[in-house]
Amino acid sequence: MLTNFGIGTLAMSHSELIDDLVAANRILADHGVFDAYGHISARDSANKERYWLARSMAPALVTAEDIIEFDLDNRPIRPGENRLFFERVIHGQVYKARPDVMAVVHNHSPSLVPFCNSDTKLRPMVGNAAFLGEGAPVFDIRTVDDDGDLNVCTVLQASALAQALGAHWLVLLRGHGAVVVGETVHQCVRHAIYAERNARQQIEATILGPVRFLTASEIDYARRMKPKDPDRAWRLWKGRAMGAAS
Amino acid sequence: MLTNFGIGTLAMSHSELIDDLVAANRILADHGVFDAYGHISARDSANKERYWLARSMAPALVTAEDIIEFDLDNRPIRPGENRLFFERVIHGQVYKARPDVMAVVHNHSPSLVPFCNSDTKLRPMVGNAAFLGEGAPVFDIRTVDDDGDLNVCTVLQASALAQALGAHWLVLLRGHGAVVVGETVHQCVRHAIYAERNARQQIEATILGPVRFLTASEIDYARRMKPKDPDRAWRLWKGRAMGAAS
Amino acid sequence: MLTNFGIGTLAMSHSELIDDLVAANRILADHGVFDAYGHISARDSANKERYWLARSMAPALVTAEDIIEFDLDNRPIRPGENRLFFERVIHGQVYKARPDVMAVVHNHSPSLVPFCNSDTKLRPMVGNAAFLGEGAPVFDIRTVDDDGDLNVCTVLQASALAQALGAHWLVLLRGHGAVVVGETVHQCVRHAIYAERNARQQIEATILGPVRFLTASEIDYARRMKPKDPDRAWRLWKGRAMGAAS
Amino acid sequence: MLTNFGIGTLAMSHSELIDDLVAANRILADHGVFDAYGHISARDSANKERYWLARSMAPALVTAEDIIEFDLDNRPIRPGENRLFFERVIHGQVYKARPDVMAVVHNHSPSLVPFCNSDTKLRPMVGNAAFLGEGAPVFDIRTVDDDGDLNVCTVLQASALAQALGAHWLVLLRGHGAVVVGETVHQCVRHAIYAERNARQQIEATILGPVRFLTASEIDYARRMKPKDPDRAWRLWKGRAMGAAS
Repeated sequence: MLTNFGIGTLAMSHSELIDDLVAANRILADHGVFDAYGHISARDSANKERYWLARSMAPALVTAEDIIEFDLDNRPIRPGENRLFFERVIHGQVYKARPDVMAVVHNHSPSLVPFCNSDTKLRPMVGNAAFLGEGAPVFDIRTVDDDGDLNVCTVLQASALAQALGAHWLVLLRGHGAVVVGETVHQCVRHAIYAERNARQQIEATILGPVRFLTASEIDYARRMKPKDPDRAWRLWKGRAMGAAS
Repeated sequence: MLTNFGIGTLAMSHSELIDDLVAANRILADHGVFDAYGHISARDSANKERYWLARSMAPALVTAEDIIEFDLDNRPIRPGENRLFFERVIHGQVYKARPDVMAVVHNHSPSLVPFCNSDTKLRPMVGNAAFLGEGAPVFDIRTVDDDGDLNVCTVLQASALAQALGAHWLVLLRGHGAVVVGETVHQCVRHAIYAERNARQQIEATILGPVRFLTASEIDYARRMKPKDPDRAWRLWKGRAMGAAS
Repeated sequence: MLTNFGIGTLAMSHSELIDDLVAANRILADHGVFDAYGHISARDSANKERYWLARSMAPALVTAEDIIEFDLDNRPIRPGENRLFFERVIHGQVYKARPDVMAVVHNHSPSLVPFCNSDTKLRPMVGNAAFLGEGAPVFDIRTVDDDGDLNVCTVLQASALAQALGAHWLVLLRGHGAVVVGETVHQCVRHAIYAERNARQQIEATILGPVRFLTASEIDYARRMKPKDPDRAWRLWKGRAMGAAS
Repeated sequence: MLTNFGIGTLAMSHSELIDDLVAANRILADHGVFDAYGHISARDSANKERYWLARSMAPALVTAEDIIEFDLDNRPIRPGENRLFFERVIHGQVYKARPDVMAVVHNHSPSLVPFCNSDTKLRPMVGNAAFLGEGAPVFDIRTVDDDGDLNVCTVLQASALAQALGAHWLVLLRGHGAVVVGETVHQCVRHAIYAERNARQQIEATILGPVRFLTASEIDYARRMKPKDPDRAWRLWKGRAMGAAS
């Protein structure tokens, strides 16, 4: 069908990326990771200085037409775009700081919030959450400024957030939520969903007494090895979320 | 379409207010803030001595025909109305005490009840719950009379409740539930939903250890600044609740 | 339509009772008070030596054809009935011991079980749960015999259970579940649903610290006074449960 | 209809077994015991050296065509089968070690995970969970090797796991999940569902204070006696899960 491979492949790649982002929005809403708020972006694999992100809207309602292209300074590529997320600055600054990251989620999923406001570290209970490593860092926006707005809206704030993220896959935001990253949109969605589940299970384990977390060698193994058949979950989740949305 | 602006605008305003109240009832039922019980009223912006409230019925079943107009002494404007909430006295007394308040909810949402019967204060975990300030007050009906009925049915009780509310946006009722207020119906619904979520997250954070709440400057910021795009949540919630109800 | 009032009225009364029992089964299943197990009976107001109860089956599937008449010795009135609950002996013994009781539920609802196996008493958090009084008693089947079967299958066991219930509206069964009673089917269903909710809220309140329960005068008030418009909840619950079942 | 009884019966038996396995996959997904991961197998009653298990796929999507026959060394009987679970080695090793076991589940159900990483033993709260005995053992894969992969993929690992299971019906896997077994597919599904419920109730009971578990004589009774009408739950669960899936 595609005879012009050069443009055809590029166009298809964008359409796949957009299809993935629409599904990611729906999946994260379907899992309660997003409610009316939260956003997920994908870096363009064909042009790493660009990323794609929905307009400012409820994630459950995002369609392909709502996905907009941005440069890493968070300016829309097509002139005249409006209704943009104020917090999109998070995405640009994280992509600048982390060349390995191809997708970024910002969310406020319910079981993560208790860890945002506690000295107890969010740590991995099971292999699927090994990406949490020795414990997720917590970013406190007061280290940048203390005007009282908890939202991350300036380059300075987002840059400090990216620094707090460091080489981690998830950073908690005091009094706010989390930023979760991945090497692909699929992996980023997995991270966001398993972080929420792990948080709930860690809270419940805390009721039972001292908690044993993954060992350093188990965390290290997960860092080296990809999960077997990771797309099994994606396909199931997408089928449900897109079905539920239609 | 509307040529008689004077009457037309007023009529439309009432019809919008009623549409908002129907949606608010369905949204709060859909979120589990209301079960078979609970009620939400709106003050008339065109006549601040009047408010609108459903008949005594399950919130999930409320339609436009069920919304009745009251004066601030809680008397229905149209003669012959029946099946009225006994506890509507709460609405009149709160509107009298708080000229800034345009909407009042009374509910018994599940995660608020533990805070009604505890010395632990309900305090804000995240920006969306900053309206809880330094902690929600708890009203004890025994400060008025001690006959054992926990319902707020007399002017004296409702007046003491309004006093306990003070300048807050939410007051807990010992052994009972909560009264939540807002500057608009939409804001009041937001307050009721975010109070419930915050309560659950605060309970879970308590399991993890000492909890850090919003700072005074963060609470103050939220008091001065309106949330960006607050109606995004309203539109999503309304779409779901009205869809679920039809 | 009914010209033979004597028989007609009686027949209609039975059909209403059966209709109530079918709805009660569906409502309790819909609320998670029943899963595949649990049963609710109604005493016949026209003949207090009889009660009606479904065959041994999943409550969510009960229809009018499945409701059977029993004497207080738990024998089916119509010969040849089969597939009967072994634990129906609970119903007969409770009706014998408590002339005021017109409906009996036996269930294992999830938040009640922790209280079955704890020294912490289940006590009322809110007015709707005032029927729990100063705390629900716990029946330990080992006070009757210790063969290890936790089910209440003999007259001796059920009789001891009825004695443990005493003048209460709910008795917990160690390692098992609960028996809940009411003056009507509607009230009995309310008791079972509000006991479950109260249990969850009491567990969560316990996380926050010392819990304040209803006062003696509040409990006493609820004992003397009927709730206002109690059937509002019944109608909502029935509409949902019968809709969900069809 | 079946005239060739020898082959006919055998064929029908396989088709019943496959029908049961499809239903079991759907039921366990419907109950949240499985998410995108987890698997259940059944030993062939006509040939105890064989078992049946789905391809590597999301349990909620399993159909009869996806069920494959294996020998106890976990080799598919029909040549050319692909997309097989790496962890199927668990099934073969458990069947070898336990001649009484006819069905094996491997899952990661949410309330079991806290017990995998705690010194608090998972113990029976109610009769339906009496199969947990004096407490479920916990298998630590580091007793076999310590390369950091938590998945059970080698004969050595699966053999050690089967040894940790011993004569129990459930073994927890540190940092991972559980393996649950039964004398039939139906019983195995019951065990997996009631283990999850019991875990949640035990966590909640722990909040209330010291927990009383079933006595030795109650556990022993459940070991000797079959539950009355166990298939009532299966029929209800199957109806819901197959309905939900279609």
